[in-house]
Amino acid sequence: MILHLSTWHEVEAYLQQSQGIIIPIGSTEQHGPTGLIGTDAITAEAIARGVGEATQAIVAPTINVGMALHHTAFPGTISLRPSTMIQMVRDYITCLAKAGFTKFYFINGHGGNIATLKAAFSETYAYLEDLRLNNAQQVQCQVANWFMCSSVYQLAKELYGNQEGSHATPSEVAVTQYVYPEAIKQAPLASEVRSGHRIYSATDFRAYYSDGRMGSNPALATPEHGKQFLDLAVKELSNGYLEFLNAE
Amino acid sequence: MILHLSTWHEVEAYLQQSQGIIIPIGSTEQHGPTGLIGTDAITAEAIARGVGEATQAIVAPTINVGMALHHTAFPGTISLRPSTMIQMVRDYITCLAKAGFTKFYFINGHGGNIATLKAAFSETYAYLEDLRLNNAQQVQCQVANWFMCSSVYQLAKELYGNQEGSHATPSEVAVTQYVYPEAIKQAPLASEVRSGHRIYSATDFRAYYSDGRMGSNPALATPEHGKQFLDLAVKELSNGYLEFLNAE
Amino acid sequence: MILHLSTWHEVEAYLQQSQGIIIPIGSTEQHGPTGLIGTDAITAEAIARGVGEATQAIVAPTINVGMALHHTAFPGTISLRPSTMIQMVRDYITCLAKAGFTKFYFINGHGGNIATLKAAFSETYAYLEDLRLNNAQQVQCQVANWFMCSSVYQLAKELYGNQEGSHATPSEVAVTQYVYPEAIKQAPLASEVRSGHRIYSATDFRAYYSDGRMGSNPALATPEHGKQFLDLAVKELSNGYLEFLNAE
Amino acid sequence: MILHLSTWHEVEAYLQQSQGIIIPIGSTEQHGPTGLIGTDAITAEAIARGVGEATQAIVAPTINVGMALHHTAFPGTISLRPSTMIQMVRDYITCLAKAGFTKFYFINGHGGNIATLKAAFSETYAYLEDLRLNNAQQVQCQVANWFMCSSVYQLAKELYGNQEGSHATPSEVAVTQYVYPEAIKQAPLASEVRSGHRIYSATDFRAYYSDGRMGSNPALATPEHGKQFLDLAVKELSNGYLEFLNAE
Amino acid sequence: MILHLSTWHEVEAYLQQSQGIIIPIGSTEQHGPTGLIGTDAITAEAIARGVGEATQAIVAPTINVGMALHHTAFPGTISLRPSTMIQMVRDYITCLAKAGFTKFYFINGHGGNIATLKAAFSETYAYLEDLRLNNAQQVQCQVANWFMCSSVYQLAKELYGNQEGSHATPSEVAVTQYVYPEAIKQAPLASEVRSGHRIYSATDFRAYYSDGRMGSNPALATPEHGKQFLDLAVKELSNGYLEFLNAE
Amino acid sequence: MILHLSTWHEVEAYLQQSQGIIIPIGSTEQHGPTGLIGTDAITAEAIARGVGEATQAIVAPTINVGMALHHTAFPGTISLRPSTMIQMVRDYITCLAKAGFTKFYFINGHGGNIATLKAAFSETYAYLEDLRLNNAQQVQCQVANWFMCSSVYQLAKELYGNQEGSHATPSEVAVTQYVYPEAIKQAPLASEVRSGHRIYSATDFRAYYSDGRMGSNPALATPEHGKQFLDLAVKELSNGYLEFLNAE
Repeated sequence: MILHLSTWHEVEAYLQQSQGIIIPIGSTEQHGPTGLIGTDAITAEAIARGVGEATQAIVAPTINVGMALHHTAFPGTISLRPSTMIQMVRDYITCLAKAGFTKFYFINGHGGNIATLKAAFSETYAYLEDLRLNNAQQVQCQVANWFMCSSVYQLAKELYGNQEGSHATPSEVAVTQYVYPEAIKQAPLASEVRSGHRIYSATDFRAYYSDGRMGSNPALATPEHGKQFLDLAVKELSNGYLEFLNAE
Repeated sequence: MILHLSTWHEVEAYLQQSQGIIIPIGSTEQHGPTGLIGTDAITAEAIARGVGEATQAIVAPTINVGMALHHTAFPGTISLRPSTMIQMVRDYITCLAKAGFTKFYFINGHGGNIATLKAAFSETYAYLEDLRLNNAQQVQCQVANWFMCSSVYQLAKELYGNQEGSHATPSEVAVTQYVYPEAIKQAPLASEVRSGHRIYSATDFRAYYSDGRMGSNPALATPEHGKQFLDLAVKELSNGYLEFLNAE
Repeated sequence: MILHLSTWHEVEAYLQQSQGIIIPIGSTEQHGPTGLIGTDAITAEAIARGVGEATQAIVAPTINVGMALHHTAFPGTISLRPSTMIQMVRDYITCLAKAGFTKFYFINGHGGNIATLKAAFSETYAYLEDLRLNNAQQVQCQVANWFMCSSVYQLAKELYGNQEGSHATPSEVAVTQYVYPEAIKQAPLASEVRSGHRIYSATDFRAYYSDGRMGSNPALATPEHGKQFLDLAVKELSNGYLEFLNAE
Repeated sequence: MILHLSTWHEVEAYLQQSQGIIIPIGSTEQHGPTGLIGTDAITAEAIARGVGEATQAIVAPTINVGMALHHTAFPGTISLRPSTMIQMVRDYITCLAKAGFTKFYFINGHGGNIATLKAAFSETYAYLEDLRLNNAQQVQCQVANWFMCSSVYQLAKELYGNQEGSHATPSEVAVTQYVYPEAIKQAPLASEVRSGHRIYSATDFRAYYSDGRMGSNPALATPEHGKQFLDLAVKELSNGYLEFLNAE
Repeated sequence: MILHLSTWHEVEAYLQQSQGIIIPIGSTEQHGPTGLIGTDAITAEAIARGVGEATQAIVAPTINVGMALHHTAFPGTISLRPSTMIQMVRDYITCLAKAGFTKFYFINGHGGNIATLKAAFSETYAYLEDLRLNNAQQVQCQVANWFMCSSVYQLAKELYGNQEGSHATPSEVAVTQYVYPEAIKQAPLASEVRSGHRIYSATDFRAYYSDGRMGSNPALATPEHGKQFLDLAVKELSNGYLEFLNAE
Repeated sequence: MILHLSTWHEVEAYLQQSQGIIIPIGSTEQHGPTGLIGTDAITAEAIARGVGEATQAIVAPTINVGMALHHTAFPGTISLRPSTMIQMVRDYITCLAKAGFTKFYFINGHGGNIATLKAAFSETYAYLEDLRLNNAQQVQCQVANWFMCSSVYQLAKELYGNQEGSHATPSEVAVTQYVYPEAIKQAPLASEVRSGHRIYSATDFRAYYSDGRMGSNPALATPEHGKQFLDLAVKELSNGYLEFLNAE
């Protein structure tokens, strides 16, 4: 069930059955010479919809722009500051909690979102208790990173070994190729790609990772791989969502 | 050209040709018994993509959640507070202006966004000047509300007269029917629908507009109407965008 | 009844009769070579006092500084950022609502305030509901722009035609001349004055509108006109206030 | 010279002669059974205008609403939160410093403003240095409390002894009587009035100081006293302003 | 009783006896050529612990970094902006008030903290009332500046006369020498030291007070003096705390 | 070298040799029936001082209060909201970066701080670039969690097996016993202790973890163990700091 394609009566009915909601969150950021700027949002959305179908959960609209300040030296990147994102997430959860939702499952496509999301959850729990919402104590948030699913990780290792890298990876590129075959990009990739440098400022990032990749070889990606990754992630996160829903 | 389906190299190349960008902005809010919660985002996105194609402009990912606090007494609505939205818009524009964009054309599907967007533009112009960006003086933002296009307005009047109303209108519902024919909803609509009450708090809104509509009869909508509205809006806003781009 | 010239006992008594309050809001910004920097505050205050007398409403102290960031490249201008102004308006309304006021009628002298005021109202309605004030649902805010009164508009058209312009207009200058005849200014005015350029950054504004006027010829103003405008605005906004007060 | 009654050309000319500006700041708060709610703003404004005339300084519009949270349990009080007021003061000074002002002399009528004003000055100095304004190092702010002038203090002691008290004092009431003789109020005053309790929350304040006075007997005030206080404050603060202006 | 060396059960038991807490607050800022950067925190902490022992009060962890923006042109200084410090103090008091504390006694070692602390108290009282905490009306905060104790002031005058100065004073240096005899510093001190210039921006401060001292001769300090000051401050503030605790 | 026990001249000299600084960060929160409320700050500070000595690095004052909102249902806990902590960390780093520091090594004693610290780092990198600090691109922050050192982890496993748990652990309690042998606490501990429940709101936390422990048996701790943990952590983090310092 897609929130955007539902009416408020349908949401009201849904809430009689379940208080869970899936919120896809991605990013709008450079993904190397061949990766799509929307990679993290596209993958999170596709997987979230799969999980929604598999579990009959409602799926919120995708948060397309997240915390990607370190990529902003590359054109096309859009990022929230963490302080903005915390307020945004607080607003989302507050609205939905007032309506009766209590289990918030963020399916996330971008590692850079994790810290700020967790900070936002803490901020929000305290805020809801201060509001004295009836269901404040029941509100629970979880971030589920599809790229950290063990099944995904294992397949990526099998297919790409250490050419998976950690940004603009063949696995995430593969998923976008499967979802948008019309947007498969070709571009020359330097055979040497740097890795191992931590993430600091945007300028520092670009100075080190000059084409945007972090240790990855996205040329290995294929749409067929993409389907495999997508299916694995949907399966693993569907289980994860149901566990979350049923947990105390 | 879709930002999410582009690489940063492609964006870099685009910026050699144009500094304009189209940003669709909608809302996630109740639209009466039969309107989709995503109506404002769906319509804005569809029209923005049409304008992007017609003008070869790049189209940013849709801002799905806007300023809809007055609808939050209906389940499914998600809203930012204006203070959050101002920071969010500031972050978007700042990132893009640093990359070289200067003409920001927000194609908007929700009346409730207008005031906050304009406030955000003012906040951002001053912020960019304080940052001493090279192109700060060139940055220009405009909000283009598709539902206020004169051609759209005229057709709505012809087709629906005063049953167009001002929220959950047949014209916007029609556009969503055209875009998502699989999500056309049926529900009984009270023949009497209230109108004329201004917008204050969420509780007040729901007390007055009990099913969420404001003076509208969305049962008049058809997908065919939707196509007409979409085409008119794309045409009028394409002209609007090009004028904006070429203006001093 | 002037809030500043009342005691708290008198306010307490007033609240037994009425929950309405008039808040004049202006700006401190350049108004061309001959317009007073306080024009928008002076006019809003004079009109608000007239409305207060006509309707026996209490009138709050004038908000002298509003949202005028686009005028800040001219010396003497003072502006709040929209994000500051939203907090300020929220603080005003919250204090007054706790005391029992529920109908807030902002008589506004500056177009640049409108968007931020509306954003502030939305922010405040939600905030008051979160506070669980007893009267949160009753709180209603309205912005009444005296320069957009139809009677004012019509007289300006008759007297000045298209030389009314849109900033440093003869109509607003006339009102200040009537209120402060000792501060009527003379200065040479270029016969050509630009118009039609939208408002973006402060630097851009001054680059285009080099003497501060937007399409206006304030030399046409007279104190007698000023009295006429003042009387018309008071009359029309008195009706507006009473309607607002009596509306559901 | 009154900023509100000047044109931007006049301000430009003034800045050739002086970079000083006087900013009156008061409050909108209860002042006991007979004191005006605008007392602190009225007195600050009248004295600031006197100082402006005596020293040929420009006088900004009065900040009518300050930090009076502890008075908000009495109707008619309006207060900013300190965090709002800091942003507001920062905005004021930033606009004026960009135009060339560097010496900011706040003539203050309300003790409750002092701490927040000083905090705002610190915040602003650092902000202006971060902005890299040319004149950031020259910007200096001072708060001058008219009620703490030694000449004022001495006269109050002579006239009223310990019936001066510390809120709704006869000295401040006297000044308002002189400025607004038409608004002299009569009301029974309990002969016993409490004092000595520190200021904490609004509820606590009202619980202790039930009619709003703090140890004062405003019935002793006369308009003639008011003129004396006004003249003394103008004289002492005129010297204070000139010293400030000429100091390193 | 030291909060950091207690368990939550012990705090729970303490709250049965007392709702008072002592919070030491200092600063991390330059203190001239021989003064320790931690001077204000070290002194506040030592005195707070003494007061805690003498009065059996619980002592919170020391706030080591306060409002010292004007010292930031000297390396080693760390400062919060006032707006940050207000939020921090609000967070501290809110947590402790929810647990049952109502009497907050800040033992302060730095003059620059006073204004912001007072602003923070006002912000917090209002916030707690908005939260509708049961004990909101009982919450009281006080700032006790050990260096302004009359006994301390008198001894400093006797020992140092006008060489006490107002920053990097021999009295505060003496206390740190007593607490940390292993960190007594020697460095040449210019015999002339400036004084009398008010505090504005960090750059201005360093331009005027080139070695960081304000009119002081810290070479006069001895550890023995330090013990005397410490004992006097502990005694006077112990009385101050008990009065505060017992006051209405 | 301890920042608090240094003069600004000494810091200036240090900066000629190194641009690194160690910042201990802990928390003020319940640690079960026998754990000290200051556990996380005490351990972080002791280890940071050890690392400082081993590497001749300067050690900043300990951040005693961090992000512990989920523990606030237990008395004695003090927490910042994440949004406050982000501003605080930004202020710290900005001051120090302006003075010339570029390598910020946060030795952390509390898992709950990690997400917010990382968010704060991102916010700060972008802020410093916006400030156009000369060394903005060189600024690097790292969080080093002593309890996640592999040597620590291994010893804890050997000594305690799965009775180590994840909050109020014997390993952290042991370190505090070694540092403060006078503050070793005895209290009955229920033999059954819950674990495995994720962290959500403060109320939910206390409802599940009723005595504050998460799966741990702190009765196993001894001061001798504490010395071992301390030594291991100092050794491992000293290496970590030097690697960080020397890394590109």
